[in-house]
Parts: sequence; structure tokens; C-alpha cells
Amino acid sequence: MKRIEHIGVAVRDIEAAIAFYGETLGLELLGREVLTDLSVEVALFRIGDTKIELLAALGGKGTIGRFLEKRGEGVHHICFEVDRLVDRLAEFEVRGYRCIEGPQPGAEGKTVCFLSPRATFGVLVELAEMPGKSRTG
Amino acid sequence: MKRIEHIGVAVRDIEAAIAFYGETLGLELLGREVLTDLSVEVALFRIGDTKIELLAALGGKGTIGRFLEKRGEGVHHICFEVDRLVDRLAEFEVRGYRCIEGPQPGAEGKTVCFLSPRATFGVLVELAEMPGKSRTG
Repeated sequence: MKRIEHIGVAVRDIEAAIAFYGETLGLELLGREVLTDLSVEVALFRIGDTKIELLAALGGKGTIGRFLEKRGEGVHHICFEVDRLVDRLAEFEVRGYRCIEGPQPGAEGKTVCFLSPRATFGVLVELAEMPGKSRTG
Repeated sequence: MKRIEHIGVAVRDIEAAIAFYGETLGLELLGREVLTDLSVEVALFRIGDTKIELLAALGGKGTIGRFLEKRGEGVHHICFEVDRLVDRLAEFEVRGYRCIEGPQPGAEGKTVCFLSPRATFGVLVELAEMPGKSRTG
């Protein structure tokens, strides 16, 4: 594990949350992205060597819609950057951890997967390989 | 805001969680600390320019004990490093955010405070000033 790539935060009102992280906390807004397939709108803020990823549900649907309904707003997942996702997943599987979603395309061209939070002490752990890394890493 | 100082994660079984973050994720264990006044045991792992702070309740008591009872295991708070806590708090108060706990001593000699998660989109935000910074910052 090299660094925390980002912390995913589920929010109901992405505009209000953007104002909080951008204006009140003073973080740099890197960009916004709509992932229609996942019914999610994303806003990314840089802080140090990591990012805050705000996640809002499009039409109250998708994984984030279900999370907000069940748990309310708050931290949804922590994403760790890895060099070779396929190799790391094989290591995790040997230790008894399984992928509940992915590997699949994520925001910013990354390849991502999620481990089951039942095995990871309540934290939904995302593993992410940066674009192009699988060919060169 | 300079960086995320740490991410606080509430866990029931700190030994099992230390094994996951240390052995499975391969993070460096920086140390452990018992804060008797807060009824909490802490284990710190370094990753990139930030840390994961595992938090277990001593005797099921304190803030972490109540959190585990109500919400279960998972991310408890995000801590941002600030240079001059008193000055930053004054800025936050002008914007209508209030401190629900602190300023008070935290782990590793830091001075910390917590903002109300009702105003911060479900994320409990901790602000931390490093030891010695108030004299020189």
C-alpha cells in the first residue's frame, strides 16, 4: 500500500458539501464527474497526498443511494492505491478476503475493486490501480 | 488545511484490527497508546503523509464505546492538521460551525477539537495542532 488514494464521503446535497470542503475547509476542488452507470455524482478535493471524494446519488439510486438511506451521510469507503491490482487481489484471496465488487472502471480512469466490510472491521476498503499502471508496473 | 493528520476508525477487537492493517494491508505500526481519561486505546499506522488511528473502547465506555453501540465498527472521524487551532476555530465560528468537544489534549501531544457532524455532512471533523506549534506557528 503506497498511500490513501482518497476517502469517499456520501452526501445528500453535493453543492452544499462542495461549499463546505472548498470554502470552509479551503480545499482545492480538482473536478467533478458523473458516473451514470453507477448512478453517482463525484466531486474531488485534493489534500496533502490524498483526496476527499464526495459522492451523491443520482435520483437517490445506486450503491450511494442505498447507503444514504440505510446509514445517512458520512464516510463511505477508504481507497488505497496499489501497484498491480490483480496481484494484490490474489494475495488478499489467499488470506480469505474477497472482492464484493469489481475489478471494474472507477473515477479518473482507475481500475478499482471493493473488499467486503464484514471482514475489514466496518471499513469498506477500495483498492485502486492508477491508469496505465498494469502495463508498466 | 495542510493534510489529513489521520483517519480515526472505531473497532471492537483492536488486536484483530491491528493484524489486518499491519499484516494484510502491510502498513507500518507506529505505536500504541492508552488514553485512560477518554476510555480509549489507540493504535497508529502510517500510510503516505497520513495515518490510520484505530480506536477501541476501554471497558465499552467513553465516546468510542457509545459510537460502537450506536453505529458499529467503521470510520469515526477525519482529522485535519491546522497551524494555529485557536485562529482556525475563530474562523469556523464566524461561519457558524461550533466545537462540540475541545480544544483538549489528544494522542501524541496534539491539541485537538471536534466540530459538530450535523453541520459537516455526517463526517466528524477533528482539527489538530501539532505539539509546540502554538508557540512558533
